[in-house]
Amino acid sequence: VVTLGALAAQLGLEAPSGAGEVALRGLASLASATPGTLAFMTGGAYLDQLRETRASCVILQARWADASPVPVLVCDDPYLMYARASRLFPAAPAPAPGIHERACVDPSAILGRDVHIGAGAVVEAGARLGDGVVVGSSVSIGADAEVGARTRLYPGVVLYHGVRLGRDCIVHGNTVIGADGFGYARGPDGWEKIHQFGSVSIGDGVEIGASVTIDRGALEDTLIADGVIIDDQVHVGHNCSIGPRTALAGCPGVAGSTTIGADCTLAGMVGVSGHLEICDNAHFTGQARIGRSILEPGSYSSGTALDKTVRWRRNAVRFRQLDTLEQRVRALEAALHEQEPNPPEQADG
Amino acid sequence: VVTLGALAAQLGLEAPSGAGEVALRGLASLASATPGTLAFMTGGAYLDQLRETRASCVILQARWADASPVPVLVCDDPYLMYARASRLFPAAPAPAPGIHERACVDPSAILGRDVHIGAGAVVEAGARLGDGVVVGSSVSIGADAEVGARTRLYPGVVLYHGVRLGRDCIVHGNTVIGADGFGYARGPDGWEKIHQFGSVSIGDGVEIGASVTIDRGALEDTLIADGVIIDDQVHVGHNCSIGPRTALAGCPGVAGSTTIGADCTLAGMVGVSGHLEICDNAHFTGQARIGRSILEPGSYSSGTALDKTVRWRRNAVRFRQLDTLEQRVRALEAALHEQEPNPPEQADG
Amino acid sequence: VVTLGALAAQLGLEAPSGAGEVALRGLASLASATPGTLAFMTGGAYLDQLRETRASCVILQARWADASPVPVLVCDDPYLMYARASRLFPAAPAPAPGIHERACVDPSAILGRDVHIGAGAVVEAGARLGDGVVVGSSVSIGADAEVGARTRLYPGVVLYHGVRLGRDCIVHGNTVIGADGFGYARGPDGWEKIHQFGSVSIGDGVEIGASVTIDRGALEDTLIADGVIIDDQVHVGHNCSIGPRTALAGCPGVAGSTTIGADCTLAGMVGVSGHLEICDNAHFTGQARIGRSILEPGSYSSGTALDKTVRWRRNAVRFRQLDTLEQRVRALEAALHEQEPNPPEQADG
Repeated sequence: VVTLGALAAQLGLEAPSGAGEVALRGLASLASATPGTLAFMTGGAYLDQLRETRASCVILQARWADASPVPVLVCDDPYLMYARASRLFPAAPAPAPGIHERACVDPSAILGRDVHIGAGAVVEAGARLGDGVVVGSSVSIGADAEVGARTRLYPGVVLYHGVRLGRDCIVHGNTVIGADGFGYARGPDGWEKIHQFGSVSIGDGVEIGASVTIDRGALEDTLIADGVIIDDQVHVGHNCSIGPRTALAGCPGVAGSTTIGADCTLAGMVGVSGHLEICDNAHFTGQARIGRSILEPGSYSSGTALDKTVRWRRNAVRFRQLDTLEQRVRALEAALHEQEPNPPEQADG
Repeated sequence: VVTLGALAAQLGLEAPSGAGEVALRGLASLASATPGTLAFMTGGAYLDQLRETRASCVILQARWADASPVPVLVCDDPYLMYARASRLFPAAPAPAPGIHERACVDPSAILGRDVHIGAGAVVEAGARLGDGVVVGSSVSIGADAEVGARTRLYPGVVLYHGVRLGRDCIVHGNTVIGADGFGYARGPDGWEKIHQFGSVSIGDGVEIGASVTIDRGALEDTLIADGVIIDDQVHVGHNCSIGPRTALAGCPGVAGSTTIGADCTLAGMVGVSGHLEICDNAHFTGQARIGRSILEPGSYSSGTALDKTVRWRRNAVRFRQLDTLEQRVRALEAALHEQEPNPPEQADG
Repeated sequence: VVTLGALAAQLGLEAPSGAGEVALRGLASLASATPGTLAFMTGGAYLDQLRETRASCVILQARWADASPVPVLVCDDPYLMYARASRLFPAAPAPAPGIHERACVDPSAILGRDVHIGAGAVVEAGARLGDGVVVGSSVSIGADAEVGARTRLYPGVVLYHGVRLGRDCIVHGNTVIGADGFGYARGPDGWEKIHQFGSVSIGDGVEIGASVTIDRGALEDTLIADGVIIDDQVHVGHNCSIGPRTALAGCPGVAGSTTIGADCTLAGMVGVSGHLEICDNAHFTGQARIGRSILEPGSYSSGTALDKTVRWRRNAVRFRQLDTLEQRVRALEAALHEQEPNPPEQADG
């Protein structure tokens, strides 16, 4: 429980009068808030909800303050303040430091202070864990891997040998970092494996979702820069480089040796071909198919809009005739142009 | 081994004469059936296979009964009866009740009768497991999580703290339920994490495939209703709600805060944007890109049909000129209309 | 460390003079190579890099040999020779044979010589592991599963009961093989599960990436032939059959009962519908949507090319009018044809 006064102080916002006596036990949306919770308003669309809210306090912009039936915290960016407020309430349980008797830590591993290692976790030879690292149950940390201070690995995460993770990272359940990149040469009898000598190097403050796969490089490292956020089920191929603060929503796949710049966003299920360059500040809508390098910032899309299947089927057939259709239109234009004294463009005038 | 007589009784179907003496050891397709197996026929396309089958008995509709060279079980819906018959034969081994000596169960966890907990499984403080629950090896069950009676968790499943699973559910290997939703606010120095206070609440009789991810809600719970079936590699974002009996085939991704109604079907690799409403009885074909709310039941699609790459490339170029092409057609229509005494529509008559 | 002479002998290539004294500690790209490394050149585009390389030796085709400032190994296929050279240097650490005291191996399991079983791994009753098998930490091997000689299972892999894996396979972290196929019949109250009696049968020399799912068959086995390579996050549905040496890059999903021939390639995120036949030597570009059987070898694609979102939106709207647009063009052709003494096709000449 936090008082509204303490919370306002933490956020650097002006506290309403009597805030020292208002106890907050958590956050809530405007509509579902009850007394004892802090709500937030991110835009005018929620004005009706604001007028009815039962929250003990609402974070909002100055222009909506008068409409609130309850005390307010005024700021420019309520969504950001909501994010910061969220850190003041307990969410995931924080395990106490200590090594579970059912964990297996190689004697040559080097552990910082206040490390937690859960039951069934395995830390192999030469691994290094910084201060305050939390290793969940059944996690596997390979030989010579490095995990920076305060980084948390949830149950079932697998770090292969030599993988390096920075400080203050979060890796969710069953994610695999450092598996072999998909590298083969075609020989006379089939595929011949190319051993993968690189590793994966991940910066500070990176959050990685559940069931993600990030493969190790063939010769050099796969790179994930500081502040990158990656949702569940994402795949990053070997030798990729992902720039600072780039965000990958659920399910994208990035093929090998592609470089993505800083501050990009990939929406759900985006597919990126290999050996491309994506510049900073490029944004891609859901299921976009990135088959070429992108050199200009902006928003990109591909695919077709959803339609009733019966209609879609007719249009999808026509897609296969598009080039022919264009030629038919060109023939019509030529025929019409021949008939007329003036070309159609001038005939408009 | 089951007798055909016992099986017919279980299914509520009329047994052929002598069925008490026919021993069945399993199910088979018409074409591969051998004596001692039960086959089924789901449509007239299999009539030739029926005539040649070596099964001991065939489940079929009355109209095909005369064509069968072997005894039959007649019913209206042979595929449904095949499903029910399948439960009378042993498939996956059923582990005996008991807690493996290599499992770690917190003393404050509450276990029902006849629970099985496999080697390396971890059950944290305050978790509650109903009667007959089966927990596979290396499963992690977080603090205060609840698992309903007879639910089975296959090896490597991770349930985060506070997740609730109903009765008679099945969760396949390495699925992760309750990881943090993908919630961040953009701050001056990058993404700032929004702590996720909701959980995941899953109804009764839900089956979830392998390597699935279902994220916990930001403020309220992510909801999966009774009787939902989810195939492998599916991702469900935070704050989604999936209605009763909706089916998600392999690999779809559903972004956060989307509500999907009852009795929907999402085929493989469907992508659903966030904050949408999908009504009951909406169906989506493979790789459909759901970017808007769907208010009318029916079947929906997007994408283009497959083509030879050389032809596809020409048509894909034309797709980028589609709007221009339409304008060219409009100009032609205008030009032709000008020349003619009557507009083209009337000229047809 | 390997001498260049020994490496040349292993590859069957002619050693440069003095090769016995050149010690190689690893492989590198032309651009990043340092003395003590072996580089390779796969095409003329790298000629400038070749001229500047600091490698101790370069593998290349005869025509580029004169341009190299350092000793060379001449061959027809440098990329293949690079793959073979890669096996002569240590990549992933090879665990020593032995059963970890924290592993749980059922007494009825049958183990070959020199098997390694890591901490927390579970081998259930009746499983058979060939000589030299490596089982990573927290792996689960179900009852009666079979793993061929020298096959390596990385941490967290789950093999369900009865799954069969051939010799010399590699399975990366957290992959699940043999979970129930997605089989249900629609009953009056919802989906009724069809128990899955088949298994998964995987040939020799197969490599499977991380977080892959391959489901067990309903009545017969799901089949993966010799020499198949599968990247991370791939899903293979029940009763599929994948032919020899076929390659699946990251993230494709193959729905149930589809047969894919030999020597096919599926690029990233390809989706394949169920119950299809794909012939040998069929190739599919990224995100292709395979909704029909493919009977002719060649390269296939679907989808649209990427575009700026503002332009894409206009074209995507037009896609929904494509069939109408074609009818408008047809009407124009008919109208123009009526006006003219000759049909447009002849008017061109």
